[in-house]
Amino acid sequence: MAAAELIELWRGGLRESAHLGHAVICDGKGIVEAWGDPGAVIFPRSSCKMIQALPLVDSGAADAAGLSSEELALACASHNGAEIHTRRVSAWLDRLGLAESDLRCGAHLPNDPAERRRLTCSETAPCQIHNNCSGKHAGFLTLNRHLGGGAEYVELDHPVQRAVRDAFEAETGETVAGWGIDGCSAPNFAVTVAGLARAMAGFAQPGADRRGQARRRLVEAMIAHPELVAGEGRACTEMMRAARGRAALKTGAEAVFVAILPERGLGVALKVADGATRGSEAAIAALMVHLDIFDEKDPVVQKYLSGPLRNWRGLATGELRRASGFPR
Amino acid sequence: MAAAELIELWRGGLRESAHLGHAVICDGKGIVEAWGDPGAVIFPRSSCKMIQALPLVDSGAADAAGLSSEELALACASHNGAEIHTRRVSAWLDRLGLAESDLRCGAHLPNDPAERRRLTCSETAPCQIHNNCSGKHAGFLTLNRHLGGGAEYVELDHPVQRAVRDAFEAETGETVAGWGIDGCSAPNFAVTVAGLARAMAGFAQPGADRRGQARRRLVEAMIAHPELVAGEGRACTEMMRAARGRAALKTGAEAVFVAILPERGLGVALKVADGATRGSEAAIAALMVHLDIFDEKDPVVQKYLSGPLRNWRGLATGELRRASGFPR
Repeated sequence: MAAAELIELWRGGLRESAHLGHAVICDGKGIVEAWGDPGAVIFPRSSCKMIQALPLVDSGAADAAGLSSEELALACASHNGAEIHTRRVSAWLDRLGLAESDLRCGAHLPNDPAERRRLTCSETAPCQIHNNCSGKHAGFLTLNRHLGGGAEYVELDHPVQRAVRDAFEAETGETVAGWGIDGCSAPNFAVTVAGLARAMAGFAQPGADRRGQARRRLVEAMIAHPELVAGEGRACTEMMRAARGRAALKTGAEAVFVAILPERGLGVALKVADGATRGSEAAIAALMVHLDIFDEKDPVVQKYLSGPLRNWRGLATGELRRASGFPR
Repeated sequence: MAAAELIELWRGGLRESAHLGHAVICDGKGIVEAWGDPGAVIFPRSSCKMIQALPLVDSGAADAAGLSSEELALACASHNGAEIHTRRVSAWLDRLGLAESDLRCGAHLPNDPAERRRLTCSETAPCQIHNNCSGKHAGFLTLNRHLGGGAEYVELDHPVQRAVRDAFEAETGETVAGWGIDGCSAPNFAVTVAGLARAMAGFAQPGADRRGQARRRLVEAMIAHPELVAGEGRACTEMMRAARGRAALKTGAEAVFVAILPERGLGVALKVADGATRGSEAAIAALMVHLDIFDEKDPVVQKYLSGPLRNWRGLATGELRRASGFPR
């Protein structure tokens, strides 16, 4: 099946650009609705961090290290590298008796404007704790402490990544079709859009066993601390606040977005085929309206989907629109 | 006709994302080669600045104001707002007896890292001269001085924009199918990809009449001053340097790219349908290799198309590839 048109950009009464992709809504039994190809194989990138964090929790490593709900949210985060994030990750590593140099995620300038400005204007280089994935990697290090693995915890055959792969295959119900190296150097496993949505439905209906309890704790942590999962001004944070506890949402690079709807027992996954975050943010907003999580008039829907696009003088120049048939 | 696959992003041996679009190569007689739909209607955005600058030159306004080759290059530019750009645009406005407040392009933080840092760290707001289109607008003001129009030179029915529209229809051989407001508040006229490529072929074979001389002067100015057309680290500047005088290249927002090849008498235009600059830069690089302007091993081809993509630790994570059938 081909990709479906999801989101369009209109200017001057003409369609200027368009984003095609694949979107799937699953419940506990399987696919409820789909657009494009549910069988399209994608890299979930950071959208699957809650899956990557499952072994951390159900192995007992999180409790052994006394991880807080805030730290579990950071384990699932692609954060802005703001002080609220870096302070917590630093304290977490200190508690483990580990240092920034034990991380393997690499360093990049944070997206948080204040911290970015502080580093830039003081000519200070960012460190690995600023990396948007530093919470996930602190989680990997916590699990590694528990498993007694070696220092290179991002290698494919390392006990930490083997545990992540086992959890990924169990949650998605698929044997991984391949793997790539993510921006943070951890392995990222390929999955169908339907498999990723199926996994999110599992987090929405977590179950009572040890794995189920881990799913529930991670979703509750994400919903309790939306500002730690991304940061001020970011889609995940603003959409989870707008959902008022009814959804956990997570973005991934190259335009992946997932949602977990505990009240509805539904999981959502989408991939915009061209990799444009503009498209994935608009598409997930459209699906959250479709699933009655957001009202069309909610400011978050205006910001990411239906509000006017303005130029440098504040003039309205166009708008994003749902493509015909999406999500209908 | 549907959009064609032009550029793909690969990771871990799997295709992660893809960019579809339309590309056309024209000579003086018409279409030589095409991918996707040559009749697709697009907004050329900043890729058509050399067309927007034609009335400035062939009206005699440029000579009346004693514009230099550098200023003509800036009239065709989407510049970085570096000191080399802002100093020249400021001096140009001074010579006209005009001020920054006479511009109607709006202000935004420049892309030039040094100037951006200077403004950010001194808490200084950017001005309209920093706008990447300030040279084009200085050109509009110069033409307006000559035509004696009112202050609101970006209005659709203003003499400046009527002259631009006449030139646009003459160069593209099309009656404009519509118009939108560009990021810099000027009208931007819709055109087919074939019409835009036809116009670029006209610049490649400029002719000897008054309009032809204007085309030639603008292309020579762009080729003589690649650093003024965009800036350090930018695709237009780096690709024009790599072309060593054999091509003038210009990007436009939402993934438009054009090329003028005087030696070959060819014009090129392309639009990536999703609006991703990553895709349009890779696609124009592929077409320049296809047309023997760049060698596959040229560093500029490595940077924008065929080199490995690396993550924060410098690990190769994937690469861009030409889609099957593009460009050969």
